[in-house]
Amino acid sequence: MDLIVKPIYFENMTLFVLDQSRLPQEEIYIALNTVEEVVNAIKLLKVRGAPAIGIAASYGYVIGLSNACDGKEDLLKTAQEVRQKLESSRPTAVNLFNCLRRMHEKFLGLYEQGLEAGEIIDALLKEARAIQNEDIEASLGMAENFLKLIEGAGRKLRVLTHCNTGALATGGLGTALYVIRAMHERGLLDMVYVTETRPLLQGLRLTAWELSKYGIPYRIIVDSAGPFIISNGEVDAVIVGADRVARNGDTANKIGTLSLAMAADRKGIPFFVICPSSTFDDGISTGSEIPVEYRSCDEVVNFAGVRIAPENSQCLNPAFDITPSELISAIVYENGARIYKGITWQV
Amino acid sequence: MDLIVKPIYFENMTLFVLDQSRLPQEEIYIALNTVEEVVNAIKLLKVRGAPAIGIAASYGYVIGLSNACDGKEDLLKTAQEVRQKLESSRPTAVNLFNCLRRMHEKFLGLYEQGLEAGEIIDALLKEARAIQNEDIEASLGMAENFLKLIEGAGRKLRVLTHCNTGALATGGLGTALYVIRAMHERGLLDMVYVTETRPLLQGLRLTAWELSKYGIPYRIIVDSAGPFIISNGEVDAVIVGADRVARNGDTANKIGTLSLAMAADRKGIPFFVICPSSTFDDGISTGSEIPVEYRSCDEVVNFAGVRIAPENSQCLNPAFDITPSELISAIVYENGARIYKGITWQV
Repeated sequence: MDLIVKPIYFENMTLFVLDQSRLPQEEIYIALNTVEEVVNAIKLLKVRGAPAIGIAASYGYVIGLSNACDGKEDLLKTAQEVRQKLESSRPTAVNLFNCLRRMHEKFLGLYEQGLEAGEIIDALLKEARAIQNEDIEASLGMAENFLKLIEGAGRKLRVLTHCNTGALATGGLGTALYVIRAMHERGLLDMVYVTETRPLLQGLRLTAWELSKYGIPYRIIVDSAGPFIISNGEVDAVIVGADRVARNGDTANKIGTLSLAMAADRKGIPFFVICPSSTFDDGISTGSEIPVEYRSCDEVVNFAGVRIAPENSQCLNPAFDITPSELISAIVYENGARIYKGITWQV
Repeated sequence: MDLIVKPIYFENMTLFVLDQSRLPQEEIYIALNTVEEVVNAIKLLKVRGAPAIGIAASYGYVIGLSNACDGKEDLLKTAQEVRQKLESSRPTAVNLFNCLRRMHEKFLGLYEQGLEAGEIIDALLKEARAIQNEDIEASLGMAENFLKLIEGAGRKLRVLTHCNTGALATGGLGTALYVIRAMHERGLLDMVYVTETRPLLQGLRLTAWELSKYGIPYRIIVDSAGPFIISNGEVDAVIVGADRVARNGDTANKIGTLSLAMAADRKGIPFFVICPSSTFDDGISTGSEIPVEYRSCDEVVNFAGVRIAPENSQCLNPAFDITPSELISAIVYENGARIYKGITWQV
């Protein structure tokens, strides 16, 4: 598989991530050598996107254990602390917790077998690499399942996507943006509308940058123009990713997703969620149980380092919203699709 | 009436406008002495807001005629040209056209009476001042009519507003933002949520600035968070202005209004449009006939003068959207209210 964009790689016990906070102006990899550095990179959105956060945290877990092996620390205690630190980085995306659970269970198995620290680290690194590779494989599966679902459309489609769900958000291919790329490669795509995605402009900066790399035609719109162009008949389908999916299909995703789902529902066009099964949280029944991260006001009131709002302005800055499953046509994952309200195409 | 903010005034054949493109960082009045300067100030949004545009254009009409009087130009031909130039400044808000029609009809009457140029100018200036004063009076009427409509709520309300519809957008008081101020003064307001209003941040910059001046508590949100906090039960009513209202009640207003109306409708909270009757365009039957202005891509891709999106990115930048009247609870104007889907309060 040709990774046009290489968001995350691991070499010599160092995690390298393409710094997403500096794209598209600068393409710079930062080297992370401690758990704290990994946690900060996630908090500051240098690495972001639900699957990418899970992958970075998995490598971070390896780094944490590896650093502890230099001394005489209690490896079990260290592993628990490392897991906890990494889990504290961001609350909403469930992939983080799922990946860390998997890494920790792997560790416990190896630890109970009485393996040497060095052997444990080697095996954990293999596990983290497996998580990344499985994520790339999952993207291929999502694309395959998605293309089956849109066979009925019978024409090239104009799609709208939100935030960034491409290579940068994952192990190397993407979720919603990868299925859009797959549409393009099969001649099924007419145009992509890209929401800028305030406050941090992941659409304007990252998705636009990826689409340019892939040679896919796109147009940027402000977030609130999405519902208008949908209701105007300029969009055939909305395709987004997810940060956590409750058992009933309610989906947490980047703030603004809900407004697009409402507009798609009113217009009668399909609204697709594309995510790996690591995004499913069957431990909770509905979206109201998903913790929504509220981030700093600074993200809203500052532009290019300059404060634009009046001094002392108060803000409310939810990073995610919850889209009820009744507004979702289907959630597509690597092994299939969960159909909610179903798929109908406007002529 | 105490004008806390003085957006527009006219002295010595010069129009002074508080430059809205520089607020809240700088409070600077610019002096406009020619029709071209007035047209540019409107195009560049130094003066903006449907009623304020109409008022500025009315003074601009006086300036244009006055400048022509220095020479021997054909006054009738000049008046037609001045009207045309001013009408070309922005297409969506109808107040511009309504005010210019009124000024031109006034001119034609005076011209046909055979009055001297100087007398005509004096009378036209009186007419422009009347337009501004009537706008201020209209705000008082809107507030009175609105307060009657919300008597049934029975508690302090948390409201959400979009863009800027205050003193800056009008002759000196406001439409939606003035009724919010009236609520505050009567102890009926709990909190205002202010959408930042991309791309030009009229909410983050102008509405926040006005609310600070009035001592009204507010919180800024990104536009796409509006539908989420509405659906979360954090908002009791949405209150917006309008740029043009079709005969059936379909309303053009700042891009993003439609997404808020959809969310209010789903949640069952009232959605109010507040505008002077000069915003009604009974010459067109539905919203689909309202021309929507598409503005430059630069507004979307640049922040604080720095290009953020990748080079060569394409954009689509509609400045307005159309909210169908079926999503509107009531349109409140200076002489009453048109009720569409009606008003029910969530408990």
